[in-house]
Amino acid sequence: MQDLNNGGGGGGGGGEVYQIRKLELSDKDKGFIELLKQLTVCDSVSDKDFQGRFQELARLGDDHLICVIEDSRSGKIVATGSVFIERKFIRNCGKVGHVEDVVVDSMARGSQLGKKVVEFLTNHASSMGCYKVILDCSEDNIPFYEKCGFKKKEVQMVKYFT
Amino acid sequence: MQDLNNGGGGGGGGGEVYQIRKLELSDKDKGFIELLKQLTVCDSVSDKDFQGRFQELARLGDDHLICVIEDSRSGKIVATGSVFIERKFIRNCGKVGHVEDVVVDSMARGSQLGKKVVEFLTNHASSMGCYKVILDCSEDNIPFYEKCGFKKKEVQMVKYFT
Repeated sequence: MQDLNNGGGGGGGGGEVYQIRKLELSDKDKGFIELLKQLTVCDSVSDKDFQGRFQELARLGDDHLICVIEDSRSGKIVATGSVFIERKFIRNCGKVGHVEDVVVDSMARGSQLGKKVVEFLTNHASSMGCYKVILDCSEDNIPFYEKCGFKKKEVQMVKYFT
Repeated sequence: MQDLNNGGGGGGGGGEVYQIRKLELSDKDKGFIELLKQLTVCDSVSDKDFQGRFQELARLGDDHLICVIEDSRSGKIVATGSVFIERKFIRNCGKVGHVEDVVVDSMARGSQLGKKVVEFLTNHASSMGCYKVILDCSEDNIPFYEKCGFKKKEVQMVKYFT
């Protein structure tokens, strides 16, 4: 757990408004899925499906991490992002971090939460020994990721099945 | 194993020149690493490191697949590519296939081997229930992936650690 923002002003005992940490099962009841709906198509997920997917991902250990930022005032999840570690043969059996599904609650923007999420995920990839971390974004989001230390590199191609 | 090219002409008994299949441990001695060196920085890999990485990836089961095409005349690996399956919460707990490290031996180009590799990986992602498959490529390779049924979508951003 990392304190991002001491909302308590000068004195001691100030509460930390925004705390960044790994996703927990109980975050489903704190608006995690509703937050993802701000990112893309995301249907409601049953408790059973959520738990199943959560456990599948947990089996990957540190090779898959979803972080969330909780607003301690509301108890709601206001930002999230994920990174998974791909193991390769190239680059001396190197590893690459893939950042995915970064979103900040539209009501919580302007507090640098997106940057905190990307830094958290990037630091995780670095600590796992990755030689690089990559992500795909829209043209509009390039300036944001440049502020996070990323550079434009290649072109993302997609093929949809459904 | 899938026959890509019946080199034997009309009659029976013709040998299949190009066979596509999953990577096997013995492919290290068939030029697999040398082929990857045509793609990017790829140091020589010791037998021990190769085996270690191979086993790590094998633990992922069908969530990670590396395919190779072997030239039955030379016994050499002449094309390869990989796909890993990412599990998400979005899209109704959907899955995405990530295609990586596609390369065809410079001496074997013009035989549609790249297309066969991409189709093999794409079909795997589809059979795993992915709603889409994505990859990053250079501007120069866009026409090739368009022939494989992909469309340009977003921008890849990268941050290097080393």
